[in-house]
Amino acid sequence: MTDNRQMIIASLPDGPLAEDHFELRVAEQPQPGPDEILCRTLAITIGAGQRAGLQGSASYAGPPVAGRVMNGNGIARVERSADPAFPVGALVSAPTGWQEYSVQPASALTALPADGDPDPGLQLGLLGTNGLTAYFGLLEVGQPQPGETVMVSAAAGSVGHIVAQLAKIRGCRVVGVAGTDEKCHRLTTELGLDAAVSHRDPEFRAKLREATPGRIDVYFDNTGGALLESALFRMNLHGRIACCGAVSLYDTANPGPGPRGVPGLLVNNRVRMEGFLVFDYRDKYDQARAELTGLVRSGKLRPWITDYDGLEAAPRAFIDLLGGVTVGTTIVRVSP
Amino acid sequence: MTDNRQMIIASLPDGPLAEDHFELRVAEQPQPGPDEILCRTLAITIGAGQRAGLQGSASYAGPPVAGRVMNGNGIARVERSADPAFPVGALVSAPTGWQEYSVQPASALTALPADGDPDPGLQLGLLGTNGLTAYFGLLEVGQPQPGETVMVSAAAGSVGHIVAQLAKIRGCRVVGVAGTDEKCHRLTTELGLDAAVSHRDPEFRAKLREATPGRIDVYFDNTGGALLESALFRMNLHGRIACCGAVSLYDTANPGPGPRGVPGLLVNNRVRMEGFLVFDYRDKYDQARAELTGLVRSGKLRPWITDYDGLEAAPRAFIDLLGGVTVGTTIVRVSP
Repeated sequence: MTDNRQMIIASLPDGPLAEDHFELRVAEQPQPGPDEILCRTLAITIGAGQRAGLQGSASYAGPPVAGRVMNGNGIARVERSADPAFPVGALVSAPTGWQEYSVQPASALTALPADGDPDPGLQLGLLGTNGLTAYFGLLEVGQPQPGETVMVSAAAGSVGHIVAQLAKIRGCRVVGVAGTDEKCHRLTTELGLDAAVSHRDPEFRAKLREATPGRIDVYFDNTGGALLESALFRMNLHGRIACCGAVSLYDTANPGPGPRGVPGLLVNNRVRMEGFLVFDYRDKYDQARAELTGLVRSGKLRPWITDYDGLEAAPRAFIDLLGGVTVGTTIVRVSP
Repeated sequence: MTDNRQMIIASLPDGPLAEDHFELRVAEQPQPGPDEILCRTLAITIGAGQRAGLQGSASYAGPPVAGRVMNGNGIARVERSADPAFPVGALVSAPTGWQEYSVQPASALTALPADGDPDPGLQLGLLGTNGLTAYFGLLEVGQPQPGETVMVSAAAGSVGHIVAQLAKIRGCRVVGVAGTDEKCHRLTTELGLDAAVSHRDPEFRAKLREATPGRIDVYFDNTGGALLESALFRMNLHGRIACCGAVSLYDTANPGPGPRGVPGLLVNNRVRMEGFLVFDYRDKYDQARAELTGLVRSGKLRPWITDYDGLEAAPRAFIDLLGGVTVGTTIVRVSP
């Protein structure tokens, strides 16, 4: 009987996440039932939203529970299957969790396109939830028009770096906010942003003003908190704020009050602020993936990926992600 | 030379508004230039948003200034005019300010319909900015559907009591929030709301929960602050919040932080929150007034009006309005 290495939630954090909130356990390889499919995890991706999940009911994903395998999405290879739609050897995207093997119902699996790039970083990032979130949040909620100014927080992050590039492709002036000068430098030089400002800069508000002389038409908010407040004070008449996440509020016990300016500034400037989840756009995934694939192939859209090696590195990867150490999509390679 | 009694802003408040922030002054009656029209103010209306104006740049209306006549809209009778569109004796709606006489350019005047009800309470309330604000904010921003639950704050107020009735007419379940049990009683018995809750009730949150068993689909927010926060925690998936004003934040020196749950709850429940100003819907005023007039004539829509007599009562009326003493449209009768 083959082993199944699993990363277990040892305890739920009530302050910043630490490695000892997780524990590696070796279980037996699970046995699929007659309608189930045995999957071997090749790689998992980690997103900041999963930290919200560890706060319990605060997340749409529902609460993970101490003692269980940490939840998460990955790319897997089918190892045993009676389902002709998912033959042995096929690559699938699946809610694998942080473990080497999982059994899945067919309904939980999405086959990767046979002619596509099987790289997990691309499949889990730009063509996965990150890319789709960027695509629908920016285009359907933000509705940027050519010539408008788009601000993106966590602009070097998994969703942000795609939003920023899509906004450039749509003909916008794009201003990114990130947590280090190095990330800011890469955003302008590698991804062609018009400006990038570090939110750790003591002159942040002044620099944001300078970088947005025509104010902000669309703010794609990955952070909430102080950056959302700063953006509110720079919005143009009829501006749009696409609320994607609130990473500034996840890794803490006390999320604090909401941003000043709500609702006063929304009224004065007739600003629309709208939360969204990518799952509501499921019907349009294929169309979006086709466009994103085309943009990657033509070199117009550059996926950033930060790789970690081995399941045991997953807690560190998660902590690095929350600490702003990673850029782009964060991937943990689990099996060869 | 006839006198012109004026209510002057003696000083800008930096805490709660008091009568001595105003001062009655007797000036000379102004002389119209060749293209100007001399108007005699019959009545003025007061709205909570004017308190925001006294905070200076916080308001879209721009800052009133100490030593000047208090700004405001009224119904006036044309006293002298060379403009055939506004003959002597005609009734107009105009930015009269708090004074007996004003001179106006024709562009600032709107003639009242000759066949309409000349009552200033109706013209300044239901058919004026209050009614139009209720109409467009509810229908265009809130987009309530029959059977949905609509919550209205300041539901006995100038805009709120119209919103609540329009939502009932659209087939919604309507829950009002007001500041006294008496107002709540009148909302359910006189205007037919399904429930009304006093925000001063120590059990407010529990009672709001009880009154919204199917949660809230549309929240029409006149108050901001704690009520907005309470509503955020009761919104349904894909709910809409129409941000009309923030009266809870106007009459104070320290508006405090924003509501908790922004942006987290907006994301989880995919809520849209949108500020609006009625002036953006100018092109559709005629259509809206026609519908509102019809609803009043058929008895489906009841205008509430609180009357004050004489210009010298205006500061008291304003303070009463901010203190929740008035219901419906607040009118100060200035001249017979």
